Amino acid sequence: MKKQKRFLLQENELPMQWYNIQADMKNKPLPPLNPATKEPLSAEDLAHIFSMECAKQELDSEHAWIDIPEEVQDKYKYYRSTPLVRAYALEQALNTPAHIYFKNESINPLGSHKINSALPQCYYCKQEGTTNVTTETGAGQWGAALSYAASVFGLSAAVYQVKISIQQKPYRSLIMRTFGAEVTGSPSMSTRAGKDIITRDPMHPGSLGTAISEAVELATTTPNCKYTLGSVLNHVALHQTVIGLEAEKQMEMAGEYPDMVIGCFGGGSNFGGLAFPFMRHNISGAKSTAFIAAEPASCPKLTRGVFQYDFGDEAGYTPLLPMYTLGHDFKPSNIHAGGLRYHGAGMIISQLIKDGLMYGVDIPQIETFEAGVLFARTEGIIPAPESSHAIAEVIREAKKCKEEGRKQVILFSLSGHGLLDMTAYDQYLNGDLRNYAISDEDIEKSLKDVPHIL
Amino acid sequence: MKKQKRFLLQENELPMQWYNIQADMKNKPLPPLNPATKEPLSAEDLAHIFSMECAKQELDSEHAWIDIPEEVQDKYKYYRSTPLVRAYALEQALNTPAHIYFKNESINPLGSHKINSALPQCYYCKQEGTTNVTTETGAGQWGAALSYAASVFGLSAAVYQVKISIQQKPYRSLIMRTFGAEVTGSPSMSTRAGKDIITRDPMHPGSLGTAISEAVELATTTPNCKYTLGSVLNHVALHQTVIGLEAEKQMEMAGEYPDMVIGCFGGGSNFGGLAFPFMRHNISGAKSTAFIAAEPASCPKLTRGVFQYDFGDEAGYTPLLPMYTLGHDFKPSNIHAGGLRYHGAGMIISQLIKDGLMYGVDIPQIETFEAGVLFARTEGIIPAPESSHAIAEVIREAKKCKEEGRKQVILFSLSGHGLLDMTAYDQYLNGDLRNYAISDEDIEKSLKDVPHIL
Repeated sequence: MKKQKRFLLQENELPMQWYNIQADMKNKPLPPLNPATKEPLSAEDLAHIFSMECAKQELDSEHAWIDIPEEVQDKYKYYRSTPLVRAYALEQALNTPAHIYFKNESINPLGSHKINSALPQCYYCKQEGTTNVTTETGAGQWGAALSYAASVFGLSAAVYQVKISIQQKPYRSLIMRTFGAEVTGSPSMSTRAGKDIITRDPMHPGSLGTAISEAVELATTTPNCKYTLGSVLNHVALHQTVIGLEAEKQMEMAGEYPDMVIGCFGGGSNFGGLAFPFMRHNISGAKSTAFIAAEPASCPKLTRGVFQYDFGDEAGYTPLLPMYTLGHDFKPSNIHAGGLRYHGAGMIISQLIKDGLMYGVDIPQIETFEAGVLFARTEGIIPAPESSHAIAEVIREAKKCKEEGRKQVILFSLSGHGLLDMTAYDQYLNGDLRNYAISDEDIEKSLKDVPHIL
Repeated sequence: MKKQKRFLLQENELPMQWYNIQADMKNKPLPPLNPATKEPLSAEDLAHIFSMECAKQELDSEHAWIDIPEEVQDKYKYYRSTPLVRAYALEQALNTPAHIYFKNESINPLGSHKINSALPQCYYCKQEGTTNVTTETGAGQWGAALSYAASVFGLSAAVYQVKISIQQKPYRSLIMRTFGAEVTGSPSMSTRAGKDIITRDPMHPGSLGTAISEAVELATTTPNCKYTLGSVLNHVALHQTVIGLEAEKQMEMAGEYPDMVIGCFGGGSNFGGLAFPFMRHNISGAKSTAFIAAEPASCPKLTRGVFQYDFGDEAGYTPLLPMYTLGHDFKPSNIHAGGLRYHGAGMIISQLIKDGLMYGVDIPQIETFEAGVLFARTEGIIPAPESSHAIAEVIREAKKCKEEGRKQVILFSLSGHGLLDMTAYDQYLNGDLRNYAISDEDIEKSLKDVPHIL
């Protein structure tokens, strides 16, 4: 009864700087390369499509702490701090000696952590005189966050959403429109890339690959327009470190320090956002926390991919990025965790995996929904299918603790809620959900097109 | 920048008692009557369908403070305190000297304030040996909250949801099922009442009236089963006073006291929950805050109804309740704010209106969506269509402040989010939404069946 459930920071305790783990890494992430020349890209190169400030942050391996602009701090206060919550009811249901904490990013009004980077990206664009921003989105979490952030800073936003996603998940495109964004199903006739794709394949359902191509084209052919991205890149993970920096103070309030930090893994921004601030104490040697990224068994880049230079998109329009990858033309199965259906890991994460500072585990789809339903019935929050990957891994570890009679302090990120994913829960409850196995042959095949530079 | 945006209480500052305004009212609410005998009902009478503790609370006009059971306090901590938020961005958009605050009940994991009463109702049932609870729900906010609360206290839950609502808003019935509840479309073949209705009208789409009848029948014909209700009744508003009691402390933290308290109005539990704790200072003479209930122009019971004894449900199965009513067979227009489509006001509220302690205003549907979109684009939260009625009234008052150059402190309740109401926003953005006018003749007609006892 008297045990504290939620830990919250006062506004004057909120982080005023982001943590840039690049500065502390012994082995720096390898640089992105120009695909034509194979030369490392400069910030100026990246600033053709991104804001200059984000381009600089992307390549900054010097400054461990980067000031959060006051205007961004001001907007963070609209929903931060998010609660650190002790999951007593889940612990009880598992009858585990583990202490389970979660950082509840699902509580913010956009429903996921994505807003943490959408705000600074739009802010920098505004500061640099940009009037339009564009991006791509799949299920729509990032698109919704970007649309709101653009509205906050008075920018117009054009979002290319995967065509089939608009049909399957109509609510999120309606959310974007409510915030004033223009939402176009991709492929569309509004860009040359889109026209080419439709000419070749009039019924093309769209993919993140087509949407990235269209958004990048719009940014490069429109005056005062910049492109924004919701994960994978270093500066996106940097912005997300507000999650871990808050959690560090909140764990202190709880009087504990995590033995394990667990997050679901798509491109790495949610995972890195929570993990990096804690990981710096591993790098310094002060702590020895385990960092575990939970990925779908059907998209196992961390556990079964290779570390190589590869394109960030399916069509091969982006720079070459050093990443654990399944190959840029890997076709992920149609799992409900749309945010985790990406072929590669971000550059920082890839280096950290290589250096043994963290590791991945993969989870079959049905196990993630079992975990999500148990979490809902105990803690009262219906998690996003993405977040349920983290919960499933937490449950595995908590059960191990029970078997071994060992107390461990486990911290995980609840990156988003599942209120707009209820049809997926319906399928699960009806027994209509399936797991997807990926054969070694499938992976071998898609790895054939990876440019083998490393 | 340094201005505080959100005010939060620590767990040890959360209310440990609910506030029972009945005890302080100079004119007590009139008692509910047995429709056959016209005699006042006792707590024992009410306990045939409700838990005994709720039945006692319903009629308690002696105790101003009622202890919140420790187990309920413990579960409140899963999401309380909710933030009190200063709406700086909305103020700026309106260029008003008014200070606007809102109590954000939309942030809890069930998405609305309903959970505040679902938890104690299920707790008392559990304590009294009940094993099953039942209820009716329209759009599903209450049904979702009740399903979660039942799961928390290990009760089985059977929810009768208006059949047409299940089809129109499938997500909320899926949420109930995720929490383990059995959801039945009403009218159904599972009760005598349902069978009779279907026999008469095989295509009946269902209504709150049919669903109440079925749930009450289930409760009275099933061993260890009790009925629960999400609004209208005194004990429901009592449980909701946690909202206002928290807000009172939080306004103190903000260094202000509200000149106006505004809430949307369906049956009265959300409105009373915020208003009653502040209203006690009006009753004592210490303050003179204005209390304004915002109702739909298409369901104007407070502004155009009569104060009479009437049935709580369409079919006339409930006790007679003293209420401002449009007649129990009033057919509200098909507005999107489903939670406000109810013909009568709760007993306490009705007496307070009669005594001039508060008043109603009515708002056309399109104005509420204009307000909701402005709120979303400024404060970042897409409000429930119900809550947008309060926002619309706040905007009216804030504009008056601007015209008159008068600073007023305005507090309103954001009772829920609109993430599952996006199709309504879509219609608004497409210009497909309409207002509904109710003629005096319509009201006169539906008032004909009101038992004229007063």
